[in-house]
Amino acid sequence: MTAIDQYLEENALDFEDELCQFLRIPSVSADPKCKADVIQAAKWIAEQLERLNFSSEVIPTDGHPLVFAQSPLIPGATTVLVYGHYDVQPVDPLDKWITPPFDPSHRNGNLFARGASDDKGQVFTHVKGAEAWVKTAGKLPINLKFLIEGEEEVGSHALGKFLEKHSARLACDCAVISDGNQFAPGVPAICYGLRGIMCYELRLTGPNRDLHSGSFGGAVTNPANALTQILAGLIDGQGRVQIPGFYDDVVPLTDRERNEFAALPFDEPGFFRQIGVDAAMGEQGYTSLERRWARPTFDICGMWSGYQGEGAKTVLPSTSGAKISFRLVPNQDPAKVTAGLKQKLSQLCPPGIRFELIDAHGSSAVMVPLDSPYIEAAARAIEHAFGRRPVFTREGGSIPIVADFSNKLKAETLLLGWGQDDDNAHSPNEKFALADFHRGIKASARLWEELSKIKKG
Amino acid sequence: MTAIDQYLEENALDFEDELCQFLRIPSVSADPKCKADVIQAAKWIAEQLERLNFSSEVIPTDGHPLVFAQSPLIPGATTVLVYGHYDVQPVDPLDKWITPPFDPSHRNGNLFARGASDDKGQVFTHVKGAEAWVKTAGKLPINLKFLIEGEEEVGSHALGKFLEKHSARLACDCAVISDGNQFAPGVPAICYGLRGIMCYELRLTGPNRDLHSGSFGGAVTNPANALTQILAGLIDGQGRVQIPGFYDDVVPLTDRERNEFAALPFDEPGFFRQIGVDAAMGEQGYTSLERRWARPTFDICGMWSGYQGEGAKTVLPSTSGAKISFRLVPNQDPAKVTAGLKQKLSQLCPPGIRFELIDAHGSSAVMVPLDSPYIEAAARAIEHAFGRRPVFTREGGSIPIVADFSNKLKAETLLLGWGQDDDNAHSPNEKFALADFHRGIKASARLWEELSKIKKG
Repeated sequence: MTAIDQYLEENALDFEDELCQFLRIPSVSADPKCKADVIQAAKWIAEQLERLNFSSEVIPTDGHPLVFAQSPLIPGATTVLVYGHYDVQPVDPLDKWITPPFDPSHRNGNLFARGASDDKGQVFTHVKGAEAWVKTAGKLPINLKFLIEGEEEVGSHALGKFLEKHSARLACDCAVISDGNQFAPGVPAICYGLRGIMCYELRLTGPNRDLHSGSFGGAVTNPANALTQILAGLIDGQGRVQIPGFYDDVVPLTDRERNEFAALPFDEPGFFRQIGVDAAMGEQGYTSLERRWARPTFDICGMWSGYQGEGAKTVLPSTSGAKISFRLVPNQDPAKVTAGLKQKLSQLCPPGIRFELIDAHGSSAVMVPLDSPYIEAAARAIEHAFGRRPVFTREGGSIPIVADFSNKLKAETLLLGWGQDDDNAHSPNEKFALADFHRGIKASARLWEELSKIKKG
Repeated sequence: MTAIDQYLEENALDFEDELCQFLRIPSVSADPKCKADVIQAAKWIAEQLERLNFSSEVIPTDGHPLVFAQSPLIPGATTVLVYGHYDVQPVDPLDKWITPPFDPSHRNGNLFARGASDDKGQVFTHVKGAEAWVKTAGKLPINLKFLIEGEEEVGSHALGKFLEKHSARLACDCAVISDGNQFAPGVPAICYGLRGIMCYELRLTGPNRDLHSGSFGGAVTNPANALTQILAGLIDGQGRVQIPGFYDDVVPLTDRERNEFAALPFDEPGFFRQIGVDAAMGEQGYTSLERRWARPTFDICGMWSGYQGEGAKTVLPSTSGAKISFRLVPNQDPAKVTAGLKQKLSQLCPPGIRFELIDAHGSSAVMVPLDSPYIEAAARAIEHAFGRRPVFTREGGSIPIVADFSNKLKAETLLLGWGQDDDNAHSPNEKFALADFHRGIKASARLWEELSKIKKG
């Protein structure tokens, strides 16, 4: 056993305690009431890095602060940038949590808390992977930078600007991100593609107040009825999005990809059983993995109109609204999607209704090269920690910054997710398997060594 | 001036004060938290009638109590049953009220409060119409009964049973109901037709929890998307409801009705301007009045799914739901509508989604004969109080009990609405014009006299 691995074994329980401290901070970036907590989470993770002799800063922004830290410079060594986020999703519906979201709880080898997997627990593995080097060898074998943001769940507004302005400080040979899932328990993965996303809020206004549905119903366009007509018109019965030009730039799946996806040990019945769904459904002509990883989608994330209380209230509502999102794939252009959406909404919006499309934010999809030496280094590190070579996958979720790393830093990005599909990211009862937490730390510590061996050219 | 009319003039301000007492009681029948207030409202109106020497009772039911009262018997005289309701609609959105809903406020000749027009203010005119006779002549010229319920806004559950069981006590020559509107300011109306209504709550369930829309989106049926597809499928682009058999029993408008409606002084641009709507819309081939009064509708009264808070939350929701209603016309059968709806929902519900249709309640539409002597008596009473003969109209709203009066008591029903279309019934800032309140009382007092003159047999 190496000194590093021994250090990790001896300090495993301390690592868990420290992660619980981090998880107790309710850093919900979408909730203005959590502003102070978000700042506290930034300070907490910055202090962790300062203790490892990193120069560590909490950098104010127009929104939530960024944490940036770097290890003492080793001239000529490989430079690696770890990106992650310390903000978390909202917790509602709160009554569905078995234990409180910000009071971490151990059950069946898992740690339950909002942010356990997405992304506090995962980003923390790299802090501990660095610590193992500093505490055993006195220093890291590479130049390591951390960029940890507080707005990943709300569109990463500050990050783009920071990247634009400070690309020299952020310069690196490769970026490392752990904010996703393994392929399955015991099947670690390196993810080479991410979907993009565009999110919007659509608001409809009809009459200037709620109306009596008896006195007015039938003669006035109902904004709730109109919302269903409009949103239903954005997708057809074959699961195809009905926005002009939506599929024009979509990169089709290659035969090699389709074959490799089909060969993965994907337990499709188990996948659906676990989420309580009795039928695979989606775009016609594609498998479930292809639908999740490599095809664009339209999903309503929230919707509201009129009376939602107990009993009946026979109103014709004045307004209605929805939070809608499109997952994008290479090479869809978010700006073209927004333009096409606006055009389609104008066509679908009936007389008597005004619509407003607001809060557009998102990012493009990204793919990283499968044949890079950095990917091979990561595969070796993962094999050391997890006991098997990773599979190569794509991922349905979005990490807005990955496209920016590629475009602005010209850096290759290693997407090394330590989570699992059933971690309940974005749902009640989020969890992270403690075994995955510790294997992630072990893989991280080994990754710094593997990356240090790469000949730079 | 008659002694009656003089009494009404002298006591006008007291009547307003008493109405305010009634309106201060927040008797929201849909809200379990208002249960005690609902009972208090029942007691208050029962006491008012007791003071006029009526035998007056507050009758407990499985839901909210009924108030029943009758004047001392005059053998051989015409017997009239006044029906009304002391319960009111919920008040949300509360922040849109200029003054609090249960703190009555005078502005520009109107009294603003929840229930001012629907129906506390209107039913109270008949109490004061009776009082004028008792205080001036010592007694009424007819046998007068009052039946005032507390569940009109939530489906009149107790009333149907009570009517079934106590039809002998309720026996009458005609019923009088003031729970609607005049045709326009200064244009009183007698309404000879009401739409019926069926209300339902539709609930959809997909995955067993909210899912990450990136990891799962595209491969799992989204209950919010499904809700829009299903509800949009219940009505077509021509405003026609798409339920099997929905129009089979609809009584078509006669040429006479269409001509009379067209001749009414209906300010259609003003109607739409007042509610802030820039386009008349509805079932193709019908005018706005025909759509409101004599054609069936489908309206979503409330709708919900997923995240409705600030910012974005990229979930694929576990559930969605809607409160939906159909306005019915003669001779649609509510049971057939429910059966057709269930059949259509089964067709429309996509794989991966379970639906539940609950809380069905409602009543059939009703029409009353235009050539009855009771209608002519009411027309004379209205002309005395309002200074012009009423027009004869239909009404889009529903009064569940009117069909029962017709079927079970074999009584002709006089629908004498003292309200106005802009009274904001069921909306924030409900009001009742004080002039209409006092003219309603005057018409009521004269009505007892006109009805006493009708030769029975």
